Amino acid sequence: MLSSVEVEKHQKVVQVGDIKIGGDELVIMAGPCAVESREQLLEAARYVKEYGGHILRGGAFKPRTSPYSFQGLGEEGLKLLAEAREETGLKVVTELMDSDDIELVNNYADIIQIGSRNMQNYGLLKKLGRLDKPILLKRGYSATIKEWILAAEYIIAHGNSQVILCERGIRTFETATRNTLDLNAIAWIKEMTDLPIIIDPSHGTGKRSLVAPLAKAGITAGADGIIVEMHPYPEEALCDGEQSLKPEDFAKMIKELNRVAKAVDKRLVV
Amino acid sequence: MLSSVEVEKHQKVVQVGDIKIGGDELVIMAGPCAVESREQLLEAARYVKEYGGHILRGGAFKPRTSPYSFQGLGEEGLKLLAEAREETGLKVVTELMDSDDIELVNNYADIIQIGSRNMQNYGLLKKLGRLDKPILLKRGYSATIKEWILAAEYIIAHGNSQVILCERGIRTFETATRNTLDLNAIAWIKEMTDLPIIIDPSHGTGKRSLVAPLAKAGITAGADGIIVEMHPYPEEALCDGEQSLKPEDFAKMIKELNRVAKAVDKRLVV
Amino acid sequence: MLSSVEVEKHQKVVQVGDIKIGGDELVIMAGPCAVESREQLLEAARYVKEYGGHILRGGAFKPRTSPYSFQGLGEEGLKLLAEAREETGLKVVTELMDSDDIELVNNYADIIQIGSRNMQNYGLLKKLGRLDKPILLKRGYSATIKEWILAAEYIIAHGNSQVILCERGIRTFETATRNTLDLNAIAWIKEMTDLPIIIDPSHGTGKRSLVAPLAKAGITAGADGIIVEMHPYPEEALCDGEQSLKPEDFAKMIKELNRVAKAVDKRLVV
Amino acid sequence: MLSSVEVEKHQKVVQVGDIKIGGDELVIMAGPCAVESREQLLEAARYVKEYGGHILRGGAFKPRTSPYSFQGLGEEGLKLLAEAREETGLKVVTELMDSDDIELVNNYADIIQIGSRNMQNYGLLKKLGRLDKPILLKRGYSATIKEWILAAEYIIAHGNSQVILCERGIRTFETATRNTLDLNAIAWIKEMTDLPIIIDPSHGTGKRSLVAPLAKAGITAGADGIIVEMHPYPEEALCDGEQSLKPEDFAKMIKELNRVAKAVDKRLVV
Repeated sequence: MLSSVEVEKHQKVVQVGDIKIGGDELVIMAGPCAVESREQLLEAARYVKEYGGHILRGGAFKPRTSPYSFQGLGEEGLKLLAEAREETGLKVVTELMDSDDIELVNNYADIIQIGSRNMQNYGLLKKLGRLDKPILLKRGYSATIKEWILAAEYIIAHGNSQVILCERGIRTFETATRNTLDLNAIAWIKEMTDLPIIIDPSHGTGKRSLVAPLAKAGITAGADGIIVEMHPYPEEALCDGEQSLKPEDFAKMIKELNRVAKAVDKRLVV
Repeated sequence: MLSSVEVEKHQKVVQVGDIKIGGDELVIMAGPCAVESREQLLEAARYVKEYGGHILRGGAFKPRTSPYSFQGLGEEGLKLLAEAREETGLKVVTELMDSDDIELVNNYADIIQIGSRNMQNYGLLKKLGRLDKPILLKRGYSATIKEWILAAEYIIAHGNSQVILCERGIRTFETATRNTLDLNAIAWIKEMTDLPIIIDPSHGTGKRSLVAPLAKAGITAGADGIIVEMHPYPEEALCDGEQSLKPEDFAKMIKELNRVAKAVDKRLVV
Repeated sequence: MLSSVEVEKHQKVVQVGDIKIGGDELVIMAGPCAVESREQLLEAARYVKEYGGHILRGGAFKPRTSPYSFQGLGEEGLKLLAEAREETGLKVVTELMDSDDIELVNNYADIIQIGSRNMQNYGLLKKLGRLDKPILLKRGYSATIKEWILAAEYIIAHGNSQVILCERGIRTFETATRNTLDLNAIAWIKEMTDLPIIIDPSHGTGKRSLVAPLAKAGITAGADGIIVEMHPYPEEALCDGEQSLKPEDFAKMIKELNRVAKAVDKRLVV
Repeated sequence: MLSSVEVEKHQKVVQVGDIKIGGDELVIMAGPCAVESREQLLEAARYVKEYGGHILRGGAFKPRTSPYSFQGLGEEGLKLLAEAREETGLKVVTELMDSDDIELVNNYADIIQIGSRNMQNYGLLKKLGRLDKPILLKRGYSATIKEWILAAEYIIAHGNSQVILCERGIRTFETATRNTLDLNAIAWIKEMTDLPIIIDPSHGTGKRSLVAPLAKAGITAGADGIIVEMHPYPEEALCDGEQSLKPEDFAKMIKELNRVAKAVDKRLVV
């Protein structure tokens, strides 16, 4: 049987330093799509900290559809994330793409993110099961909820129960938005499993102006937090600029989330 | 150019008696999937009224996938809806399936509902354009947002601008839920058009326990109200029992919606 | 039980004049998307006849996503189809969109086509059940195979068993082609029902160069014929020009189909 | 720019021993879903050889949705494949799931198969680019054609141009079949790129009786060959039994394919 859908369900909380994910407090993860430079990352990190975020996101290894697109700064990017953590006190979440880099990323990250394309990379999932580190498992862009839970089960069954799910939008026929953020899945997961779950309205919508409404909707549906893309200068971003919040958008959204959180008996500690 | 996506957007309000749909007040439509009997409908209507609903829903003509399924009570059902309106003061929304019944349904309904399967029944849409009656236009289960707006435009361009959109879930690969309620669409529509829009979390999820979380999420994303299935005895319902709220679920949801509404500067007048 | 999936399956043949659809002979339906003018239609019809087609297609009533697009010539278009039939001896298939036009279209058409958007317009289907006329029932662009068969059953159960199915592509996430022609459905329908079925590779692919390969593939999968768009001057077509064959493409495809037909024990009588 | 979509297109042929994939001759790959035992594999291999197959398929490493399902025999399975090759003279295609096993699988396989779930495992693709070995790249079950070609490009750009594509069905709303085999994609790929492409009607349909019609349809649409599941005793198979051909089904299909091949100017050398 699945530990994640066992009968005696208890809200499982994943702890990252002082931050508890999956309880009454919401978690805010924010930062640029990719780590691009020292200046960019530090400026972004200061905004995240100032406006109430808890965890800095930023990709050092980028899964790009084309082999000719910017692939990320690699270890140099990880070092910059560590520097930003040092300066701001934020925790760091960053993506691991390849099992060759597992030690490297584990050395730098407070949470290891597994992206949508690797959700069913079972060899990688098994290795994550042997770590003592929280894992942010994004939903495959066309994975059913059941396949997603079973992917989490690969990690848990191999020894690591610190799994946080992340709904990031599914692929449908609709083209007005980049993906279709599936909030049914949030409510379903909260009812049927004890896994913490957050949402990514940046990838889920692909459109800056829709990020705040969907972030609020996700929290209302039961999500334990959000992960959003924020860039000091979105128009100059090397990837995903059109879905990245500006710092002032981020600040505004945090205020709105605070009101919504209270209406569903959650707290946003900023 | 589309009147619905014109540059100078103003929030259009559709008025049904004293009820304003599309402004600061949320509208609650509720009732059984199908009108089954006098007792069932009146009991349901009393619950809707008592717990704070504004508009009674109930199908007299039912679009059923199989020709051998219950097809609805027809005019007898419409008369029962009128009786329930008389007794409770609730307004009535009910589905029109066939242009042959347009006068009949128009005589009884305060809002005429066009179901998902008829969203691109252009002959019918044109005829609705000649009525002076609010139309609830459900999204085709695989219609893009653009196709949906253009279907509304068929009604508007033929003379009737009292169109209320209803997001009721789209068809995706996911099978854990009956449909995937698309809340991206809510935020997109509110940003890009001036049409009022409500959500149907009953069809959108197909699962009773998910109705309340998604209703709340929809309001937070910007919806102007909800339409839900509520049945005095869901286990005896002739259709959609598994997604119908019990009266006590409905009452509880309304209280929760009230809190959420305030957090997004809307009001729920009960 | 469904008459269309009953246990003792026999290949049902629908007869249109001398043409038998559903047996060993393949049927070729071709012509422009829309009837645009006398010259265009007659020129197209002559090509269809000359190169081996049996039935002329052409829309007089056009279901267009936007109310501001060309909506078809109406009865004038039907008269031109009749004139083309008179001259060439081809039979005529044309779309009925609205039950108001049922007598009119029935007077002119040899086969009445029901388009994708009307597959679940149950009122219309019931009325078709009372006619003595072959019906070409296109699959809804997101209808499951089961829903499609049950739509056919609406017509059959109301008295008209002359139903020919038409697979015309389903809506998926893929955007390289206009739709995804579902040839699984062809093989499934031929195995599980006794309904004749043809394919529409023009809408199914949306791309002229893909029409012939998919037409051949459909026949090989078991289809009883094809319906394709052919226009004397596709670049001037009022709709669907990019998916319309040129007359010489059509002639070439017919020759290729002839070879393929023999390889699967079918005949193409040209 | 993409080498696979360059302007001067020439039909690229991938050579596996004496077998040429991508030219006038069709390739037949067949065998069980998983290598289960010595007896099972050798018996299957003898049937493949006897009835005209060229390449033996069989999984030693199995990507299973649940961590609790049979995961394959691992290296023991690879050794059995080598033994079957030794006895029958068939070449061997088998799946690589994890970059840890790349040397191991490379030592045994004549073609390395990359499964649907790993199509965007870019780290793995890059490593395959450094091998001198044909790669069978299955389409991700929800990958667009463009994403698929770009995944091939990851391998090609890193040095290995011996890529064979495999269409294995995409995920859609339809549930009557396991997947929807996309034959539009076959014709599109053959027109726009110079990559060889085969189809997998076993996964594409999930239903034994549909395998032969779809295999034939795929060849007619332009595919360079097929890969099918065949098991001596499908009812005892550890995985995918319901979609596995029986040996006599396989023999019959090969004869039918032979006729179809000639009708599209291809040859089936058995």
